[in-house]
Amino acid sequence: MEQRNPADTSLGRPLDGWRLRLYTIIFEADTRAGRSFDIVLIIAILLSVLFVMLGSVATINAKYSAVFSWVEIGFTALFTLEYVARLACVKYPMRYALSFFGIVDLLAMLPSYLALFFPEVYVLVDVRVLRLLRIFRIFKLTAYLTEFTTLGLALRASARKILVFLSVVLMVVVIMGTVMYAVEGPAHGYTSIPASIYWAITTMTTVGFGDITPKTDLGRFIASTMMLMGWGVLAVPTGIVTAEMTAQRRHFMSTPTTRTCQECLSEGHAADANFCQHCGARLPAYQSEAAAKIS
Amino acid sequence: MEQRNPADTSLGRPLDGWRLRLYTIIFEADTRAGRSFDIVLIIAILLSVLFVMLGSVATINAKYSAVFSWVEIGFTALFTLEYVARLACVKYPMRYALSFFGIVDLLAMLPSYLALFFPEVYVLVDVRVLRLLRIFRIFKLTAYLTEFTTLGLALRASARKILVFLSVVLMVVVIMGTVMYAVEGPAHGYTSIPASIYWAITTMTTVGFGDITPKTDLGRFIASTMMLMGWGVLAVPTGIVTAEMTAQRRHFMSTPTTRTCQECLSEGHAADANFCQHCGARLPAYQSEAAAKIS
Amino acid sequence: MEQRNPADTSLGRPLDGWRLRLYTIIFEADTRAGRSFDIVLIIAILLSVLFVMLGSVATINAKYSAVFSWVEIGFTALFTLEYVARLACVKYPMRYALSFFGIVDLLAMLPSYLALFFPEVYVLVDVRVLRLLRIFRIFKLTAYLTEFTTLGLALRASARKILVFLSVVLMVVVIMGTVMYAVEGPAHGYTSIPASIYWAITTMTTVGFGDITPKTDLGRFIASTMMLMGWGVLAVPTGIVTAEMTAQRRHFMSTPTTRTCQECLSEGHAADANFCQHCGARLPAYQSEAAAKIS
Amino acid sequence: MEQRNPADTSLGRPLDGWRLRLYTIIFEADTRAGRSFDIVLIIAILLSVLFVMLGSVATINAKYSAVFSWVEIGFTALFTLEYVARLACVKYPMRYALSFFGIVDLLAMLPSYLALFFPEVYVLVDVRVLRLLRIFRIFKLTAYLTEFTTLGLALRASARKILVFLSVVLMVVVIMGTVMYAVEGPAHGYTSIPASIYWAITTMTTVGFGDITPKTDLGRFIASTMMLMGWGVLAVPTGIVTAEMTAQRRHFMSTPTTRTCQECLSEGHAADANFCQHCGARLPAYQSEAAAKIS
Repeated sequence: MEQRNPADTSLGRPLDGWRLRLYTIIFEADTRAGRSFDIVLIIAILLSVLFVMLGSVATINAKYSAVFSWVEIGFTALFTLEYVARLACVKYPMRYALSFFGIVDLLAMLPSYLALFFPEVYVLVDVRVLRLLRIFRIFKLTAYLTEFTTLGLALRASARKILVFLSVVLMVVVIMGTVMYAVEGPAHGYTSIPASIYWAITTMTTVGFGDITPKTDLGRFIASTMMLMGWGVLAVPTGIVTAEMTAQRRHFMSTPTTRTCQECLSEGHAADANFCQHCGARLPAYQSEAAAKIS
Repeated sequence: MEQRNPADTSLGRPLDGWRLRLYTIIFEADTRAGRSFDIVLIIAILLSVLFVMLGSVATINAKYSAVFSWVEIGFTALFTLEYVARLACVKYPMRYALSFFGIVDLLAMLPSYLALFFPEVYVLVDVRVLRLLRIFRIFKLTAYLTEFTTLGLALRASARKILVFLSVVLMVVVIMGTVMYAVEGPAHGYTSIPASIYWAITTMTTVGFGDITPKTDLGRFIASTMMLMGWGVLAVPTGIVTAEMTAQRRHFMSTPTTRTCQECLSEGHAADANFCQHCGARLPAYQSEAAAKIS
Repeated sequence: MEQRNPADTSLGRPLDGWRLRLYTIIFEADTRAGRSFDIVLIIAILLSVLFVMLGSVATINAKYSAVFSWVEIGFTALFTLEYVARLACVKYPMRYALSFFGIVDLLAMLPSYLALFFPEVYVLVDVRVLRLLRIFRIFKLTAYLTEFTTLGLALRASARKILVFLSVVLMVVVIMGTVMYAVEGPAHGYTSIPASIYWAITTMTTVGFGDITPKTDLGRFIASTMMLMGWGVLAVPTGIVTAEMTAQRRHFMSTPTTRTCQECLSEGHAADANFCQHCGARLPAYQSEAAAKIS
Repeated sequence: MEQRNPADTSLGRPLDGWRLRLYTIIFEADTRAGRSFDIVLIIAILLSVLFVMLGSVATINAKYSAVFSWVEIGFTALFTLEYVARLACVKYPMRYALSFFGIVDLLAMLPSYLALFFPEVYVLVDVRVLRLLRIFRIFKLTAYLTEFTTLGLALRASARKILVFLSVVLMVVVIMGTVMYAVEGPAHGYTSIPASIYWAITTMTTVGFGDITPKTDLGRFIASTMMLMGWGVLAVPTGIVTAEMTAQRRHFMSTPTTRTCQECLSEGHAADANFCQHCGARLPAYQSEAAAKIS
């Protein structure tokens, strides 16, 4: 997480005394207390998510319903405490509350409070949605690995390329989906254009659920072309890249060549080597016919 | 889109006055009016396609049938207006009408006119086909992104490689499909060679619908080899490329070491080298701890 | 196909007169007659394979049974003639008869003769197997594209890598298949270890037919790890390669840099450029901080 | 396998006489006897695994039950003999017994002894688990191929990258699985969050069993995004890598041209360059026919 300079008193609240100690523990991980806090919190998040997952299994929930309620209250209390502590020890409480992590932390506690203060809402809002909101706690983990930030940056850098690629794929599935809708029709499972587009996506991404399948010969033929397209988008560039690499490899000087040392007759010296690495003698100049080798 | 020099009066109609202003708006995107036109048109295309998709959903169509008819009439009128405007302001109307975009634009309006002027045809031609023709409007969008042109060029450049790759894949699925037809037979779903080839494609492209599956042990064995083939075509080159990359990074003929030549101070000599390949001096003996590392 | 020197009379039959003319037509493609022969033969092979495919469709076969019989006789006659012609005009008839293409050509005619001379065999041998033998004619096409030879060589070169990779995959599917057999058991579709291995292959190659699926929680958990493994084998190296490439790209000198020409203030000159490509002024020396940029 | 210097008598038992001869045969493969031993053992392992696989097929087991029992006793005796021989001829018996291969060898014999000495256990322990333990003999094969050690090292090197990648994927499937659980619910097959996560994994890894499929429109829409994500993780980097490779090949800042600088004769200047980036001379005007090529 980004380091804030606690001594900066130019704006917001001054960080001193207990605030500074608390800040060091919660937001920084350079002290033993700070690292322990992080580890305890990560374990708490993982356990909490695990309990939400187990609580959704009907058989387990039936047996241990009370246990799950108490556990959930416990975690909510814990996360509330953590949230209050964070707000209490940062310089800009509002900035934290409105940041990504602030919102995730709020969402982590919200369902239980909703259930507590608005019992009618609790009945109306599907318990499944409440479980979903609790699962979002898992996003709190992203603060702890720098690789996630790197991944986010990498995605943002390629954003335009990804968008163009995606729009081509979307255009293809819309067209092919509608073609199959016209060819197969609702009688064979292609009930509407959106449903056919859903099928087209399962086919082009090679997932192939099988809940909708073409029955007519023309439909199967079109499906075959789509499958070859979706798989080919992976296979063709991979093949081209492999061919390029092996071609480039022949060109580069680190590949084994048939250069032979005239003194010790050992073969396979690098294209840019001047001396034999086995006997020390000077190697004759290298004549490359690499171009001829690449058929 | 390609820029035409409006002042060129050598052939076709001269572009002046209102024609020139219209041309600037429709075909060019450097003025505010031109960009607004493009945005409005893109939104119109997307909305029109969305309405065609929604109109195919039985439940929605039942409720709002009249709305959909009027919306479709509205879009047809809009695209007709646009088509007429384009024809009116280009230098070579025929050239535009016969170009890719001209045909797509024509197709965008055609279904509704077919329905209007040939009501008997409208009844005979499946409404699903009419919806398909309307969906083709989506091709109008390709004019707005240069990346599509780049993609088209890239595909054309690799055309021969793709064709060879495709024919190998086709040969394999024809052979393997027929083998499965012989082994499993119509009793197990492999009703004919074309159907078996369809199954072979779902298997080799790892889509795996599951509408046809092998039941005999020999059939399952052959299917296993096909699956490993189809997946291997992706996995093996990827593995080779990764190995190549890490090998190139290391640059030398055996595992990288930190051996340094004491004469010329170059690093990275092979573990089994006795002489420096850059200056010929003898390298000090290599102390390897690699064996210990390999548990 | 390899060129034989027709004038070489050292061994075998001398190629002269009509033999030489026939040889040029059949085996070489440098004359107009030679090329026409090739094209006619390719079309004949494709048509013949198409007829075998169509003949397997029950509905079509019922209607046109006689037509298919006569067409098959016709093609058999054609290929017999071609085979005899080839044998007649090469220097070493036995060498051709025992080569790959010689055997494929023999196989192309064999089924019909089997049917003719051994009618009882014809009844016993499944017509599906006969169709399979006829489909092998498609291998005759590989003579016409040099890329197939290249592909064959490439595969032979990587043979050891492929075999090692394959044996690792086989080991994994044997182990995981047997684990699922132990966990799920015949009651849930995992009837034997071979069947479970078949399921393991459909899962690891991401085909996922769905004819056998895990029902227990532990089974689904193990299946999840297998799916992540099979997909990860494709995704992880691809990610590593992409990361490597973008890192290498930053290092190389062709990437756009922020080098600015001091005369015309244009940006983005190549790292190795000495002069501004827009105004011709000399560019200041390039200070690279590429290492710092690669986080 | 690593070579131990048999003459080293500093620790453990001295290797001499019959011990040394046995050691050379079992652990080394440089003598004819050593290689024969290796081949016989590999064949024994493969046969033993094959018999375990066949023994699980109900139909075969029913017929040849006695044969399988005797064969299994035979192999157990063989592997026991091998194990005792190994222990008898190494310098450090305990070190071998606790190494990876030592434990695998022990596991290879264990099931049958368990069955023999604890018949009640044999009845309780599922015969399927016993078969599983026997299948683990296949790990003995890894001693014979150095590529496995290389693979193990490669995996260990990339361990952190793989773990980060895996945790991102896990986070995504937990979130998306729970979303589908909330949207579709137990009525449509998404019986609990763990079951939904299992479904999410089958979808993102493009396996797509089809045992659970989304039925609602929103569910199908979310499933579509997940499929595009899972397939995109493979397709997008592959596309980026291919683009990078072809860009690197071209080496310059816009499409490659054959423009040649008349002063220094260097080729390949950008289409929009006015000055040569190598010598500063003015380049002749560029006549582009690219526009004409883009139909």
